[in-house]
Amino acid sequence: MVRTISKIMSTILLLGGVVTACLGQLDIEKESLEIRKIYDEVLSSAKCYEWLEGLTQDVGPRLSGTPGAAAGVEYTRQIMQDLDMDTVYLQSCMVPLWERGPQQEQARIINSSLLGTEELTVTALGGSEASAAGGISAGVIEVQSLEEVEKRAAEVRGKIVFYNRPMDPKQIRTFRAYGGAVDQRGAGASTAAKYGAVGVLVRSMTTQIDNIPHTGGMYYEEGVDKIPALSLSTMSAERLSKALESDPDLHIYMVSDAGMREDQPSHNVIGEIRGTTYPDEIILVGGHLDSWDIGEGAHDDGAGCVHSLEVIRTLRAIGYKPQRTLRCVLFMNEENGLRGGRKYADVSNAKGEYHLAALESDAGGFTPRGFSLEADAETFERKLTQVKNYDDLLRPYGLSIDVGGSGADISPLKSQKGLLIGFRPDSQRYFDIHHTAEDTLDKVNKRELELGAAAITSLIYLIDRYGL
Amino acid sequence: MVRTISKIMSTILLLGGVVTACLGQLDIEKESLEIRKIYDEVLSSAKCYEWLEGLTQDVGPRLSGTPGAAAGVEYTRQIMQDLDMDTVYLQSCMVPLWERGPQQEQARIINSSLLGTEELTVTALGGSEASAAGGISAGVIEVQSLEEVEKRAAEVRGKIVFYNRPMDPKQIRTFRAYGGAVDQRGAGASTAAKYGAVGVLVRSMTTQIDNIPHTGGMYYEEGVDKIPALSLSTMSAERLSKALESDPDLHIYMVSDAGMREDQPSHNVIGEIRGTTYPDEIILVGGHLDSWDIGEGAHDDGAGCVHSLEVIRTLRAIGYKPQRTLRCVLFMNEENGLRGGRKYADVSNAKGEYHLAALESDAGGFTPRGFSLEADAETFERKLTQVKNYDDLLRPYGLSIDVGGSGADISPLKSQKGLLIGFRPDSQRYFDIHHTAEDTLDKVNKRELELGAAAITSLIYLIDRYGL
Repeated sequence: MVRTISKIMSTILLLGGVVTACLGQLDIEKESLEIRKIYDEVLSSAKCYEWLEGLTQDVGPRLSGTPGAAAGVEYTRQIMQDLDMDTVYLQSCMVPLWERGPQQEQARIINSSLLGTEELTVTALGGSEASAAGGISAGVIEVQSLEEVEKRAAEVRGKIVFYNRPMDPKQIRTFRAYGGAVDQRGAGASTAAKYGAVGVLVRSMTTQIDNIPHTGGMYYEEGVDKIPALSLSTMSAERLSKALESDPDLHIYMVSDAGMREDQPSHNVIGEIRGTTYPDEIILVGGHLDSWDIGEGAHDDGAGCVHSLEVIRTLRAIGYKPQRTLRCVLFMNEENGLRGGRKYADVSNAKGEYHLAALESDAGGFTPRGFSLEADAETFERKLTQVKNYDDLLRPYGLSIDVGGSGADISPLKSQKGLLIGFRPDSQRYFDIHHTAEDTLDKVNKRELELGAAAITSLIYLIDRYGL
Repeated sequence: MVRTISKIMSTILLLGGVVTACLGQLDIEKESLEIRKIYDEVLSSAKCYEWLEGLTQDVGPRLSGTPGAAAGVEYTRQIMQDLDMDTVYLQSCMVPLWERGPQQEQARIINSSLLGTEELTVTALGGSEASAAGGISAGVIEVQSLEEVEKRAAEVRGKIVFYNRPMDPKQIRTFRAYGGAVDQRGAGASTAAKYGAVGVLVRSMTTQIDNIPHTGGMYYEEGVDKIPALSLSTMSAERLSKALESDPDLHIYMVSDAGMREDQPSHNVIGEIRGTTYPDEIILVGGHLDSWDIGEGAHDDGAGCVHSLEVIRTLRAIGYKPQRTLRCVLFMNEENGLRGGRKYADVSNAKGEYHLAALESDAGGFTPRGFSLEADAETFERKLTQVKNYDDLLRPYGLSIDVGGSGADISPLKSQKGLLIGFRPDSQRYFDIHHTAEDTLDKVNKRELELGAAAITSLIYLIDRYGL
């Protein structure tokens, strides 16, 4: 069946001076076979798991500005070169460098006649500064939100503020639960410091109750004290909350010698296959190379990097020559600055480029469930309708098309008014390991990773074939 | 919106003497809230993971006829009693008992001047009999299928037949890949013995290449020699295949002292809540209690058992009183005999019962993807249409309704012409651990397990509310 997408054909539009023409007629039978070919190639010959092994075992953690990140740049640049792309290059950008000091950050309950001393399991939040040398001790105020700190401002001075609002386990999509709790991590220290707090402890971002602390980015507002900020494992958070019930006057000792250092030079890694017919329409597929310093950055976002590389390998392997320019971009510094994503968009805008579509995989290497789409208000409906045309091709692989966010690194491309796409794997296990020492290769299932790569390749292929 | 299902309402049919009436009008808004309530209850207060902990850690493996299986019966009976059902009882059935002997089964490459001696990683297939005491040694013929054994019958006498057809990694649903390979395990020994083979080695049923052997049921046809049958890990299978390329005349030594013992008394565990309005229409939800002797039977099928128990707990907790009779059945002996499933159907048929619907969870505790439905040819379309009406209610939870198989234990109920339903979780990781020593609690994710229970509860609730 050749399905005529006449409604779309008849609405070829001028978009900021760029003409998007060339929407073809969708040939379902042919494309069904092509997508089967993509899946067969990936499921029998994929390299993505092997590459992830290299990126996590040989390279290891890749926090921006560290030697690990530089090694990740070199490792993936080499893979791109071996994939025989038309161009492979490094794009320079300066990145922040945050480091833990030689001393392990710690927190413990002290000065409680009822409870004695008790260690809490913590990790410094990314971007947080050191405590006074030798640590600090203070009483604790437990809160559920930033708003509660504002309301109870009078109680905050001289205290350690303990943010303990859990991620909501009732959310089906765990990213929504994360979105509903993560303001405590990002803005908790600044909000508390405004009212004279001396430190913050933040409950880890997970619905699990376990003893694994989760780090992640936080920032200080201009003009507030840079008070130390540690993440508590959920078990420690529950323990501390219970201890405060028994003894509201207990004190906490906390120490950290983490802190921001000087900016460092780093790179995005970029490979390109020039389009045969519409070289000025760029289709980007990418993930981010940097990871937190604990763990191996296997799901976050080694998976997205090797997904993106696998797209290129697979299209090469089946002999497909993209009509549009296909660009694989491995961004630096998603976790604590987004400098790579911003730099990429700045350079692209300066060159007057147009990204027809950009897809980011930054939600882990789990079984794919589909994609979420966003674009500028004027053209979104048309583009969504076009991609929804592929439903019958994608459904047999368990994929659906939804409206929603895309990815942090590609978000600065919004002004180009192309389609932004987020890859959406199953989200249930992601926040078990996100930003922890447990984000390691053994948590990634080879088949699930490969199915993700095949899903992404299929959508990239269809967009290249039919335009938007 | 109240959606009239007039087409269905107008086709109230006589089914083998049983009148299925009482199809209500689907109130989407109300039911959307009810299903949200079910999910909220499960995701905040589920007991299923805790029960699975007990079933795997305190009870452990539960092969039919063993003390472990008896302990599983008692453990789950107690849970049902604590759930305050109207009736809880044990249904007797005799089950086969298969046991490994005191000696560990082994296989190794011997008598190869080229390769020397090399251990292979094996486990006895369930139901297989012992080798001669002291083991056997013989040359090897590698085949890809039962058909190849028939074709090469002249080469088989006196040999060990090595079945090495892999599960097809290109299948998206791994159960299809399993279905395409498992005849080698079930019928391999009998097919080989017919032509004078002295033993069989069968490649493990998994797409992974690892060193974990998978057991599973095999059977001997009447009148053939009961030759020993071992499963090889996929790494050992690949190794042996390569070794045979170098030295086709190599010999294998294999030994096993496993074997069938006398039948033992055992039980299905059954709990029932009598329907308030249509007590003669039974809705069954169940899984199987027995597991293989290696591992803990966590995914297979501890997960299905605790899913089923959680359905009852949840409906109780939200205060729902079923209109139809809701029966939770934990079957014995799915793995190597299906005696529990057959006994249950025999007793039910003898009583003239009618199962309006029966749902089995026996595909693991992974993130739910939906349900597959089967029924008798005359009524299937009508029932499928009815359940498809729930699409808008189930889709937000990532669930879809498909046509397909249901479950082994409920299949003997087919003659009652009710709807048979298989719970379908994500299948990608199942055959990594299926029938192995790795099927342990740590492979089950609490949230994924709970989401499965919530999905099943939701469908059971809708069927109870609206009939079929």
